[in-house]
Amino acid sequence: METLFGGIEAGGTKCVCAIASSFNNIRALTQFPTTTPTDTIQHAITFFKDQIKKHGQVKSIGIGSFGPLDPDPQSSTYGSITSTPKPGWSNIDFAGVIRSALNVPVGFDTDVNAAALGEARGGAAQGLTTFLYVTVGTGIGGGGLINGKLLHGLVHAEMGHIRIPHDYESDPFPGICSFHGDCLEGLASGPAMKMRWGQAGEFLPPTHQAWPLEAHYLALGLMNFICTLSPQRIVLGGGVMNHNQLYPMVRTRVLSQLNDYIRSPAIREEIEKYIVPPALGSEAGVLGAIALAQEVADTIA
Amino acid sequence: METLFGGIEAGGTKCVCAIASSFNNIRALTQFPTTTPTDTIQHAITFFKDQIKKHGQVKSIGIGSFGPLDPDPQSSTYGSITSTPKPGWSNIDFAGVIRSALNVPVGFDTDVNAAALGEARGGAAQGLTTFLYVTVGTGIGGGGLINGKLLHGLVHAEMGHIRIPHDYESDPFPGICSFHGDCLEGLASGPAMKMRWGQAGEFLPPTHQAWPLEAHYLALGLMNFICTLSPQRIVLGGGVMNHNQLYPMVRTRVLSQLNDYIRSPAIREEIEKYIVPPALGSEAGVLGAIALAQEVADTIA
Repeated sequence: METLFGGIEAGGTKCVCAIASSFNNIRALTQFPTTTPTDTIQHAITFFKDQIKKHGQVKSIGIGSFGPLDPDPQSSTYGSITSTPKPGWSNIDFAGVIRSALNVPVGFDTDVNAAALGEARGGAAQGLTTFLYVTVGTGIGGGGLINGKLLHGLVHAEMGHIRIPHDYESDPFPGICSFHGDCLEGLASGPAMKMRWGQAGEFLPPTHQAWPLEAHYLALGLMNFICTLSPQRIVLGGGVMNHNQLYPMVRTRVLSQLNDYIRSPAIREEIEKYIVPPALGSEAGVLGAIALAQEVADTIA
Repeated sequence: METLFGGIEAGGTKCVCAIASSFNNIRALTQFPTTTPTDTIQHAITFFKDQIKKHGQVKSIGIGSFGPLDPDPQSSTYGSITSTPKPGWSNIDFAGVIRSALNVPVGFDTDVNAAALGEARGGAAQGLTTFLYVTVGTGIGGGGLINGKLLHGLVHAEMGHIRIPHDYESDPFPGICSFHGDCLEGLASGPAMKMRWGQAGEFLPPTHQAWPLEAHYLALGLMNFICTLSPQRIVLGGGVMNHNQLYPMVRTRVLSQLNDYIRSPAIREEIEKYIVPPALGSEAGVLGAIALAQEVADTIA
């Protein structure tokens, strides 16, 4: 009998749950709105109980969640969402409740680290030990593997909140981050685009001046990540990146901003393989959660 | 008999070589100017040959070098300085020449990664698995341990070259980086201070407006590193940081720029233990190289 794993992609607006034996073999999948923690987590538990009856027991469950959260297994608040602005979700022991209800090991990390792990195990970052996954959507977030392990450190990365140059003369928009104003997320997230231009990115024509400006800010962000972490690759995803024209625009600007300072053939000669879209498609988030479950099972085994 | 290790701190202007059994027990130490690669490396070899006769064989030698360089043991150019602007030093197989001449294993990394390893093994970062060492002097550089290993990735970090906000109205100075103009190093390195104010930092009085501006830029840099890597601590050293008044000024500005976004007690409540000076003093560089030698010996053992 094949080993089964469970995954929960917990986003700010919706949750996706799945049971799978591998990335190519999803046995069951459901999605529902993220409401109160009690209702949302109960919804997930009910799904898994039903599906376990049908398909058999899962070896472990992975949760890739919105945050901020505590991903440190040594910490007393491990598995909890911590100080989120999302009403009711602060100090919720997400992993603990799932573990108790289903009696299986639970892996818990940020949605972006889960997605990064998914790309490493079966997507655009296979075989790499140090790479970044950056998502540009409702927010801007980043995760990744560094020296073969998920990036944690003190808490977890908050890559969207780095500060970058902002020329108020050419772009007087002040930014929308409630903490930092014109940080990367404040200037270049989906909601920032919508606020600056009066309509969401999906309604802006490909020739709109929004796109070169967006590519400019994203390239500044990626340049900073490259100088700080020296990733072997950057997987760049999220709703805003569905505008595929952005990829070549971002790549060109990363090259011109780096100005040939980092003399690696991977950047200088093959930038189109260096900054790439995710390979896991629309199920990337929940497959990342499955990857977290596989990892926690590997750790125990 | 105690095990002995050799260390070479290769800076752009001087080299320091030492033999030591531990951080507290340096048996011999010398320093000489960095001139041509042939003369400089021969000088180091002669020192080690003489000292080995006197004190006994070393188990391994560590080299912490200026760069850019190739620190990847899997690479065909491992151990070489690559594309440095320093005349004559491009494509010099530094580690290979030392290894052949002295017939011992050689560890090779950036000066900042060596210093980081030194601080981890016997300095201000003992027991930490993910922290940064940032130096502010002739240039600005960063290294560190991530998930317990030195940070490498594609090449190595070039943290001084991140881009940060630069308000030309309050600071019209264009920056001095020949690649990026007003990157962090271009705005806040020692030579940038000297160029902006007409005299070097050591001649500027503590009340000079140079210091709050310097602290502002360094805080922007550290904020970006914190958001990108979530280090457990930042060890902040280099010649510019000999102006000790900078530490509290940088800490205050990091807190105000983060604006309570990252809710870790280590940052919110104990910032004076989070951003700290190096503990290894004036021999930090060569002790870092000794730490690299110890690490390469541990790897072989």
